[in-house]
Amino acid sequence: MSNKLNIGLFGLGCVGGGLYEVLNRSSLLNATIKTICIKDPNKKRNLSEYILTTNRQDILDDEDINVVVELIDDAQAAYEIVVEAIKRGKHVVTANKKMVAEHLDELIALSKAHGVSFLYEASVCGSIPIIRNLEEYYNNDSLSSVVGICNGTTNYILTQTNLGLTFDAALQRAQELGFAESDPTMDIDGFDSKFKLLLLIKHAFGITVEPKDIVNTGIRQVKPADLKFAAEKGYKLKLFSRGQKIGKHVVGFVAPHFVPADHFAYNVENEFNAVVVEALFSDKQLFSGKGAGSYPTASAVLSDIAALLYDYQYEYKKEQSSSELGFTNDFLVDVYVGASNQEVLNKIAFEEEYAFFKSADHAYKTGRVKFSSLKKIDFNKRSDLFYAILPEDQIALTKNPKVIRSLSQKELVA
Amino acid sequence: MSNKLNIGLFGLGCVGGGLYEVLNRSSLLNATIKTICIKDPNKKRNLSEYILTTNRQDILDDEDINVVVELIDDAQAAYEIVVEAIKRGKHVVTANKKMVAEHLDELIALSKAHGVSFLYEASVCGSIPIIRNLEEYYNNDSLSSVVGICNGTTNYILTQTNLGLTFDAALQRAQELGFAESDPTMDIDGFDSKFKLLLLIKHAFGITVEPKDIVNTGIRQVKPADLKFAAEKGYKLKLFSRGQKIGKHVVGFVAPHFVPADHFAYNVENEFNAVVVEALFSDKQLFSGKGAGSYPTASAVLSDIAALLYDYQYEYKKEQSSSELGFTNDFLVDVYVGASNQEVLNKIAFEEEYAFFKSADHAYKTGRVKFSSLKKIDFNKRSDLFYAILPEDQIALTKNPKVIRSLSQKELVA
Repeated sequence: MSNKLNIGLFGLGCVGGGLYEVLNRSSLLNATIKTICIKDPNKKRNLSEYILTTNRQDILDDEDINVVVELIDDAQAAYEIVVEAIKRGKHVVTANKKMVAEHLDELIALSKAHGVSFLYEASVCGSIPIIRNLEEYYNNDSLSSVVGICNGTTNYILTQTNLGLTFDAALQRAQELGFAESDPTMDIDGFDSKFKLLLLIKHAFGITVEPKDIVNTGIRQVKPADLKFAAEKGYKLKLFSRGQKIGKHVVGFVAPHFVPADHFAYNVENEFNAVVVEALFSDKQLFSGKGAGSYPTASAVLSDIAALLYDYQYEYKKEQSSSELGFTNDFLVDVYVGASNQEVLNKIAFEEEYAFFKSADHAYKTGRVKFSSLKKIDFNKRSDLFYAILPEDQIALTKNPKVIRSLSQKELVA
Repeated sequence: MSNKLNIGLFGLGCVGGGLYEVLNRSSLLNATIKTICIKDPNKKRNLSEYILTTNRQDILDDEDINVVVELIDDAQAAYEIVVEAIKRGKHVVTANKKMVAEHLDELIALSKAHGVSFLYEASVCGSIPIIRNLEEYYNNDSLSSVVGICNGTTNYILTQTNLGLTFDAALQRAQELGFAESDPTMDIDGFDSKFKLLLLIKHAFGITVEPKDIVNTGIRQVKPADLKFAAEKGYKLKLFSRGQKIGKHVVGFVAPHFVPADHFAYNVENEFNAVVVEALFSDKQLFSGKGAGSYPTASAVLSDIAALLYDYQYEYKKEQSSSELGFTNDFLVDVYVGASNQEVLNKIAFEEEYAFFKSADHAYKTGRVKFSSLKKIDFNKRSDLFYAILPEDQIALTKNPKVIRSLSQKELVA
């Protein structure tokens, strides 16, 4: 605990403001915020002005500052800041899942080359210490799956729809309460959940997947008829970020799932997040907590900052055993597909049909499909279709699944 | 990862046997079991005999062995082994909660003096990495409570009684399935839960409490009438290890709790364990998983062994801020007390009465009582009485609570 941390903070919004407060009230004596870079100098703040700046170089050029904490919304600006900070030998703590997911291997390599720590616990499931546990605690157990509710906005909306609200009404309520943004695309179409899944897969299985290779289907198109199906069966609808190892293959996707009452996710409601880690020996472990919000996220940032006091770095130990693993979208899943009419439904190629239902304005089919054929449909944009994974689904690989090479594998080959 | 670990293993029972298998199948290449000390040389085992011994000195005297993994039942023998191992400069990993709880500060001091690691994750909630998370992740957030279902045997029994079985029938089923021992006292009277709570309190709040100062009430005396009360209200009965910080005081006790359907513990069933950590900033976090069993416990032992590869030690950072904290049993709680007749019930001093019920063979009262007066009754031995904490209970300290000085505080004063 001999390091003295001089922090340059980017962003003083919800999380940044929370961090400022949390850090002042914590017992972390060896860490102080020296400078805060903000976007809007005219916003009224209860801070002495001398630590505020709108010029990022005031932090990046300051040799006294050895830690950059990046908590801004703009992923491109965040990327530029993080790259320059690392190149200048500063440790980086960030909560920007999009930025980290899109540049993961590059930023890992850069931080290694410059001998600095690059930590991002707060970017996945807020206060839940899932990255740290995957890194440290499960570093020797053979993990078979990581399944999470990683997005608080959609979980809040789904909690409301499970109680009877329509999707539109639930979204509006979420927006009024500040849980959803005015453009909610990133959340409700599953992009945010995808970025988090990418990071979970990296720390659970050691492979890097590109965002474009992970199919994300959100909850935008769920209809009252689909929710009625769920209610009749006693299911709730949840959006899962799901990563699984099957033999030498890893599959990963974001999709709505129907869950029965005895499922871990059934009681994870509103803005709460949860992750279940399944391992060969330790079996299923559930981590649950607040996935978003000022203090919970700030507390995760604070834990990363505290870890810097003893030079903590992610070691990505799973990479060592991942060289023979391949990511694939060639697998079979059990799904429910709801549609406005039977004709639309008939265009989906089912390998096996379990049930079919039709009424005047709604039809649905349940059965086993190839994910590779499902992924050709952009469900987020199809207002006449909705799909969800059925409970008790067992994923099976198809024959000779096509492997999408991961970045880390390319490097290993080169 | 430069250390090479030569392990001397004590005990080849459920957990020891599991560890042997887990270690062989894990990717932990720098750790090997050199010698195993067993009690019964005549038991048939699938192991080459040259690594087996019945003489503990074969491990303790072996300078080649730098890690002792202690997984035997006998707490006194375990204590002797661990003390000698530490004195001989060997790291120790143990799953013996009773031994650790009874000698905690002494063993911490001894391991510090000899510069070795002393790890015991497997002793609390099997596969759930709760000690490590309290140590590492929550080292800077201000924790307010730690509440857990820490004993799988009682949770299994309670799951069965919640489904309608009598306590005796549920206990018998647990014994038939191997979940409960022939003398189940340690589990069903809450001793096991108490030892675990003591360790949770140490890592959450930094203070050491002696086992005798933590009141443990188990589930032995629960009657069908008490379970009927729970069922009518929609509650389930759970045995909690509960530690809480209130101002400058820490309270801690083991007691049955009634929990409503929206409570975290409601769906934690059978042999599963769970712990909820509540902190100022990260809010409530739930950790849930298998609390017992060969592989889950062995996987926790394995994680401790893996941590030795990078010289991991508990730092007990919370001790630094615990000097002004005191443990106390002087507080008020909301309870249900069931009794065979009204006279017995009238002897309990309620500060405030909420409800009273009487029938031919059963009576109960709910209300607020002083825990200090409750603790004068040995509920484990009173077949005419049963008590449980009510849902939504808010603990409040009484005026000028008497502080039971902790060992670590004595040391701080000295």
